[in-house]
Amino acid sequence: MSARTGLTRRLAERIVQSDPLGDEAVLAAAKAGMLDFLASTLAARDDRGADNIAAALDVQPGHRWSETTGDGRASVIGRADRLAPLDAALVNGYLAHALDYDDVHESVRGHPSAVLLPALLAEAEARRLGGADVLAAYVIGVETMCRLGLAIGRGHYEAGWHSTATLGAIGAAAACARLIGLDAERTVHAVSFAATQSAGLRVQFGSGAKPLHAGLAARAGLLAARLAASGLRGAGEPLSGDIGFLSIYGRGQAHPDAVLEGWGAPWQIVNPGLWFKLYPCCSAAHHAADAALTIRAKHAPDPGRIAAVTAAFPPGGDAALVVREPKTGVDGRFSVEYVIAAALLHGELGLEAFADRPLDERERTLAGKVRRVTDGETVPAPDAMPKGRFTVVTVTMQDGTAYAERVDRPRGSPGRPLTEQERWMKYRDAVRGMPDPWHHLPDRVAHFECLTDLSRFFPEC
Amino acid sequence: MSARTGLTRRLAERIVQSDPLGDEAVLAAAKAGMLDFLASTLAARDDRGADNIAAALDVQPGHRWSETTGDGRASVIGRADRLAPLDAALVNGYLAHALDYDDVHESVRGHPSAVLLPALLAEAEARRLGGADVLAAYVIGVETMCRLGLAIGRGHYEAGWHSTATLGAIGAAAACARLIGLDAERTVHAVSFAATQSAGLRVQFGSGAKPLHAGLAARAGLLAARLAASGLRGAGEPLSGDIGFLSIYGRGQAHPDAVLEGWGAPWQIVNPGLWFKLYPCCSAAHHAADAALTIRAKHAPDPGRIAAVTAAFPPGGDAALVVREPKTGVDGRFSVEYVIAAALLHGELGLEAFADRPLDERERTLAGKVRRVTDGETVPAPDAMPKGRFTVVTVTMQDGTAYAERVDRPRGSPGRPLTEQERWMKYRDAVRGMPDPWHHLPDRVAHFECLTDLSRFFPEC
Repeated sequence: MSARTGLTRRLAERIVQSDPLGDEAVLAAAKAGMLDFLASTLAARDDRGADNIAAALDVQPGHRWSETTGDGRASVIGRADRLAPLDAALVNGYLAHALDYDDVHESVRGHPSAVLLPALLAEAEARRLGGADVLAAYVIGVETMCRLGLAIGRGHYEAGWHSTATLGAIGAAAACARLIGLDAERTVHAVSFAATQSAGLRVQFGSGAKPLHAGLAARAGLLAARLAASGLRGAGEPLSGDIGFLSIYGRGQAHPDAVLEGWGAPWQIVNPGLWFKLYPCCSAAHHAADAALTIRAKHAPDPGRIAAVTAAFPPGGDAALVVREPKTGVDGRFSVEYVIAAALLHGELGLEAFADRPLDERERTLAGKVRRVTDGETVPAPDAMPKGRFTVVTVTMQDGTAYAERVDRPRGSPGRPLTEQERWMKYRDAVRGMPDPWHHLPDRVAHFECLTDLSRFFPEC
Repeated sequence: MSARTGLTRRLAERIVQSDPLGDEAVLAAAKAGMLDFLASTLAARDDRGADNIAAALDVQPGHRWSETTGDGRASVIGRADRLAPLDAALVNGYLAHALDYDDVHESVRGHPSAVLLPALLAEAEARRLGGADVLAAYVIGVETMCRLGLAIGRGHYEAGWHSTATLGAIGAAAACARLIGLDAERTVHAVSFAATQSAGLRVQFGSGAKPLHAGLAARAGLLAARLAASGLRGAGEPLSGDIGFLSIYGRGQAHPDAVLEGWGAPWQIVNPGLWFKLYPCCSAAHHAADAALTIRAKHAPDPGRIAAVTAAFPPGGDAALVVREPKTGVDGRFSVEYVIAAALLHGELGLEAFADRPLDERERTLAGKVRRVTDGETVPAPDAMPKGRFTVVTVTMQDGTAYAERVDRPRGSPGRPLTEQERWMKYRDAVRGMPDPWHHLPDRVAHFECLTDLSRFFPEC
């Protein structure tokens, strides 16, 4: 297959030529994704990991980190700082994923917006681009990332890759190539430079490197598009072929045709669509969270009299939940033991539940009673989200009474979407304590496609 | 295996505690590597790819790219420009590998110094560190990169990874962690942040992305060390385990124990040692280059009367030589067809032979007569370099006369090291036309371990 007719070239043509915003549902989904991204990112604005990253970039608070307010700079979302766009993409990607509160897409088996929007907003802000261009590029980035996820096969994630990072870099390159108006030829090279930067290990789950992955992928994708724009050239067919990206990262189980088959019909941002989280923790714990909250609401079991709790998953369904003995709220983001304990004790799973503080005695005791069970017998629901997944939580009291709840589709997932009010509530919770203009930002998001100059999008901090 | 006794922790302790410069041979090898690195990088100083990268970083010539001469900046080697160290590491890594003229190490199956020294020199220059610290960190970076190469197994490169990039990021993180004096705990996290950025596809060979890989790995490694210094934490055991780096990138064929077994005994920079190139082209073509130059020196065959040429490799020995129909001198860097033709026509393979110009008629015609042959019968020499490799070039004239030469160890490779004079000659060729102080830089390299402030190492341009 020659570089002129190869998979990457045909993908590049879709990236350049698609016009997704004509469809009302697509436009609405993109703006919903934008709002949820802002909520997830703003909720993390005080995360000290962003200061660590700034220090590593030689950007000291009060020094370059804050003083560079000139043109060609981009905001650190929710902070006064303005950085070069590549650095802003890195920091904002980190913040967007810091709380694991950002959206999830089943086809990616990961987090699209935390990678795509930091890259797009940074570049659009610095170049004073308009909202419609950002939304179109975002939809195309989601499509690229999702179709790569469908093409690369299950072996990719299972082997140990973090798809948010590995597929995110290429998705962000596609989105940024579209945003800055590269032609198909240069878009090929943007994809090529991104594929050759694709990285991120799942062994990092539970550490500060996991959200860093989103930032690194955002930066890698934006750099890839900028390198292509500059005229540098990479391999013309990086995706397919024996030693191409899909072969290596798919471990021989990839289906390269799936990158283009069904492109935009429907758009992945609409169907299956983005999953917006109600709780700032790993999506693999959301079924259990809903189940435990339901048990608490229905039966209010006295925590002191709980004898045992089980959480039953289909085989591999708890792979992302890497923490079994949580010590802090942050650990708890990847611990179904903690999520269930906190839900039963507190009846809610808000930002406070996952703060960086030691668990208290009651939380530790109850989490210690939760046991994971692998259930290979129960048949997953046909409309399970993600496909094949369920969790059954069973609380057994000292007197032998047992309360069980099964969840196949958590609240917020595509099968059980949040109401508009719930989405706005999530944003309001996130900006608590911020200056007034931040509370009105959702009005601008509602008309995002009409904004003509994104350098004026974010309010002052 | 816990994070406190795991492979990565034990590696980190070696990185922190080793004291390699007591050995005279190690010191001499490190300074030889430094000189060859400078020659390879300076020979590429006018490469326009560096300007492309600068544009992608928003560094316009005459703008920030040149005007930032303040403290905390690092040189673009051979240019007037001074950049933030992370950006300098990227550009210098690109330049060091741009001509494929830089050193090779058999254990890496790639290029250590083009990744390690850009990161180390940029950071040392910006922080005003001394030469001995850089050399010790360099030796330790080579050791880390080589031992990872030995541990990860042959499947890594063969699957399609570019080891220079993938192993280079971790080697550079190890070297930079040592340079800036991280303790063992933070060095673990430096390795962790590098492992999770490890990327680079061999499908890029022959394109501008190949040298970019060296720069990206240099930058990734330096960023990893700086992130660890800032206090950000990654996974404590990123290298071993079922979903660790070695498992994923070694495709199940890795030998994790080989990371530490034999560490520094002898140091890999001494034995097997670095291979310094006489010709600015892929090392896999160097056997053929020597053979063709010998045939030309012995027999001076009239190119117009050559009927056919064969180049016989052991199976897979020409994998890196991805260009079969070269159109320019740049293409020729990865084409054994061109290397043999140019050697037979010109009797030398200097910088001019691989310049960015179209091949002339005679070069195209003769390159078109070269055929590759896979030879699974010939037994490789026990001291072949790299192991198992050889090339037999056979030139058959129209009258039936045939001239054949076999090369097992090319000139410059560890088995046939360059003389000191040849190494200085390579440097002199590289700096032709540069201001006088650059011609005296080898004197500073000869006493590199005595330099106390590397911000004064490079002459003005």
